[in-house]
Amino acid sequence: MGGKRQLKLGALLHGVGGGTSTWRHPDAITDASVNFGLYKQWVRKAEEGKLDFIFIADGLYINEKSIPHFLNRFEPITILSALAAVSTHIGLVGTLSTSYSEPFTVARQFGSLDNISGGRAGWNVVTSPLEGSALNYGRKQHPDHATRYRIAAEFLEVTRGLWDSWEDDAFVRNKETGQFFDPDKMHALNHEGEFFSVKGPLNIQRSKQGHPVIFQAGSSEAGRNFASRAADAVFTGQETIEEAREFYQDIKRRAAGFGRNPDELLIFPGIGPIIGSTEEEAERKYREVAELVTVEEALNYLGRFFDHHDFSQYPLDEPFPDIGDLGKNSFQANTDRIKRIAREQNLTLREVALRTATPRGNFIGTPETVADRIQEWFETGAADGFIIHAATPRGLEEFVDHVVPILQARGLFRTEYESDTLRGNLGLPVPENRYTRARALKV
Amino acid sequence: MGGKRQLKLGALLHGVGGGTSTWRHPDAITDASVNFGLYKQWVRKAEEGKLDFIFIADGLYINEKSIPHFLNRFEPITILSALAAVSTHIGLVGTLSTSYSEPFTVARQFGSLDNISGGRAGWNVVTSPLEGSALNYGRKQHPDHATRYRIAAEFLEVTRGLWDSWEDDAFVRNKETGQFFDPDKMHALNHEGEFFSVKGPLNIQRSKQGHPVIFQAGSSEAGRNFASRAADAVFTGQETIEEAREFYQDIKRRAAGFGRNPDELLIFPGIGPIIGSTEEEAERKYREVAELVTVEEALNYLGRFFDHHDFSQYPLDEPFPDIGDLGKNSFQANTDRIKRIAREQNLTLREVALRTATPRGNFIGTPETVADRIQEWFETGAADGFIIHAATPRGLEEFVDHVVPILQARGLFRTEYESDTLRGNLGLPVPENRYTRARALKV
Ligand SMILES: Cc1cc2nc3c(=O)[nH]c(=O)nc-3n(C[C@H](O)[C@H](O)[C@H](O)COP(=O)(O)O)c2cc1C
Ligand SMILES: Cc1cc2nc3c(=O)[nH]c(=O)nc-3n(C[C@H](O)[C@H](O)[C@H](O)COP(=O)(O)O)c2cc1C
Repeated sequence: MGGKRQLKLGALLHGVGGGTSTWRHPDAITDASVNFGLYKQWVRKAEEGKLDFIFIADGLYINEKSIPHFLNRFEPITILSALAAVSTHIGLVGTLSTSYSEPFTVARQFGSLDNISGGRAGWNVVTSPLEGSALNYGRKQHPDHATRYRIAAEFLEVTRGLWDSWEDDAFVRNKETGQFFDPDKMHALNHEGEFFSVKGPLNIQRSKQGHPVIFQAGSSEAGRNFASRAADAVFTGQETIEEAREFYQDIKRRAAGFGRNPDELLIFPGIGPIIGSTEEEAERKYREVAELVTVEEALNYLGRFFDHHDFSQYPLDEPFPDIGDLGKNSFQANTDRIKRIAREQNLTLREVALRTATPRGNFIGTPETVADRIQEWFETGAADGFIIHAATPRGLEEFVDHVVPILQARGLFRTEYESDTLRGNLGLPVPENRYTRARALKV
Repeated sequence: MGGKRQLKLGALLHGVGGGTSTWRHPDAITDASVNFGLYKQWVRKAEEGKLDFIFIADGLYINEKSIPHFLNRFEPITILSALAAVSTHIGLVGTLSTSYSEPFTVARQFGSLDNISGGRAGWNVVTSPLEGSALNYGRKQHPDHATRYRIAAEFLEVTRGLWDSWEDDAFVRNKETGQFFDPDKMHALNHEGEFFSVKGPLNIQRSKQGHPVIFQAGSSEAGRNFASRAADAVFTGQETIEEAREFYQDIKRRAAGFGRNPDELLIFPGIGPIIGSTEEEAERKYREVAELVTVEEALNYLGRFFDHHDFSQYPLDEPFPDIGDLGKNSFQANTDRIKRIAREQNLTLREVALRTATPRGNFIGTPETVADRIQEWFETGAADGFIIHAATPRGLEEFVDHVVPILQARGLFRTEYESDTLRGNLGLPVPENRYTRARALKV
């Protein structure tokens, strides 16, 4: 090992795509979001490219205005588990909300996935931005932004405690003596907190990587603090290299402030590369995608970040309307950014909507151009790696076939997996079992 | 088709086994409960034998007295999803409790598994017998037996409603017109009940089989009524053919009483066949298993049914102690039966404990003997099929290799799958979408 610092790469698998209209692309497979055969192909392609992980996003509320992929898609725990059985080295990361689930169940499901996959699980801890989620879970009210992050912090603490229920050598399994386990190495958690009370022990052991890798995807103040204190990786949506650098430095600084080694918190901007054999071809491919989106669809897409606010009531070609605090309780960081940029650049509503629905991004061009940008972001303090969310139906395939080999040739990216666990490939340490550590400290 | 009524068969996959000491068997693989490679082999073996389904049991509470398999095992949703990816025709049935979960999540996870597997999912709806479960879910108290079944009934009703959120032709996906779905065929449930309030719609479509197959496994009065009204299949623990016939007739009668076709509710006693090339070899194999269990272990095993009651405090060779109502709130049907038989047959505590921990059952002998018994139960109104829970480590393999061919030769069991959905193989109808039906009635 040693050598050059290595780039890490993930692939967001998101069926017909994260936009309103990607499903209308000539190459799109329109049932992609519920097509298991296709997900299998994708995970195999990603593994062929030696990517670190695939990533499944999620949501808990839909209505008739939701984008196509959100209406009808696989649930993360199930699709990740199924993909575990048809892959061998790639990590399997999925989103699950701490606002509408139980730590005992979440710890079990991710713990079980982590065992089934031989230590390849990752959990993207989110707090659910959409107010409507409450209605699907019998709650009068969606907890407010700050409370959601307090819940998330305690939830994760409980989950980690449950994962440590069994020390790594707890299962003796000695047929001769009849001892199956060592009771000194089985631990009830007995957690009693503000939001949760959970006894334990959990009924599944730790995997080879100790705990699943913890991702986090919020970028507000509260989100940044939560990530810096407790996550192994951050999935973020920064669009320019300047913003990305600022975010990167901010998170690493906060992590250090919490007494952590900043190298053990990896930052992954999501990018949607569009690759052509020439710059012109890539441009043409971008326009083909952008032109699929009508302004009505763009307004609707924009509205989702503001908890399904109806933007069609405002004049299109006047300055972005004053909507006050709207959005603060859902996608706080995203909505703050949209409002700020609209103001700074004096954009109309039409411009804001189209930019949001079809972001141009920094990664359009030939494979060399895209590799150059990736290298630049990676080497100048804007990213530890990237999560590729294909902007065109064949985007993942094209990235693996054409960009990965360049990154490999430049010595930036692996040609073989270093490990068969996700922590191993990401270069993250295996967290020591808390009870084993306590025992060691006593001796 | 037509022809002779066909037997249905499932296989319970339960790692190191459902007993206290099965893991000590010379052939036992001691990490079986968390060994995905082994689960893969088992599901392939079961599919080679054209079995209808594999079955994963579950529990939400452990302590140091729990049997080995319960301490450390795969969680059902994850292992079933993983097995979906390495099988093509066999059904995938798992236990999930309605006392400690949310209908929106459960509907999604089983709906997603049903889509991933192409219509092969089944859900064993249980209410969680163990009081301790409450402590892992922040509840002051385990709901009482009757309340648990009321919750279960409403829970299942909500889940079924969510599964119907999208009519089968809702997803138009027309790239030309830009219509992804037909809003008239998307339905919010708007359920407001005694225990749950859930808006919907669910964010996943129905599978080819409409809804996952509903199993139920309680045998108390409340359990029987719940099964007869709402389930597609019953997993039961009857030990003698007489008890099994009585149970069978009772359930079919109740189903008819609820206005159902009794043929659409299938009854599956669980059996643990022990097969030898001679009767003597089978006997020897049974004794080998039975002798692994000490009387202390048997007392402990017995105690589990009575919510981890400590039976070691009573004299072993006196009549089974009077423990009053104990057990009523957990495994009601099992504990009532144990007490009744102890009284009727005047058994000592030792006898009761050993019989419970190592039931001899009705299915020990040569492959022909076991096939004869199966045929007898099947043809004389005691069963529609069986769930095989291997009593020895190679039990499933031996059953598939030696008993299944006899059942096939007798024309009792399929030689090829009739369908690639679980409902199709079980001969159960696809439930019509409630909104499609309502629309048809209006026209
Ligand atoms: C790149 C990125 C990916 C996200 N993925 C999900 C997701 O899959 N599911 C979800 O509910 N929220 C997701 N979110 C939303 C965040 O988890 C968070 O709820 C939202 O950004 C509001 O939190 P904040 O104000 O801290 O940013 C994502 C956010 C970002 C920036
Ligand atoms: C054959 C059989 C299998 C069962 N499997 C499970 C299981 O996997 N998980 C569980 O929590 N309970 C299981 N149970 C327990 C029942 O779901 C139920 O909670 C228990 O029998 C008490 O209900 P009752 O009094 O109606 O019988 C099973 C019961 C039987 C008879």
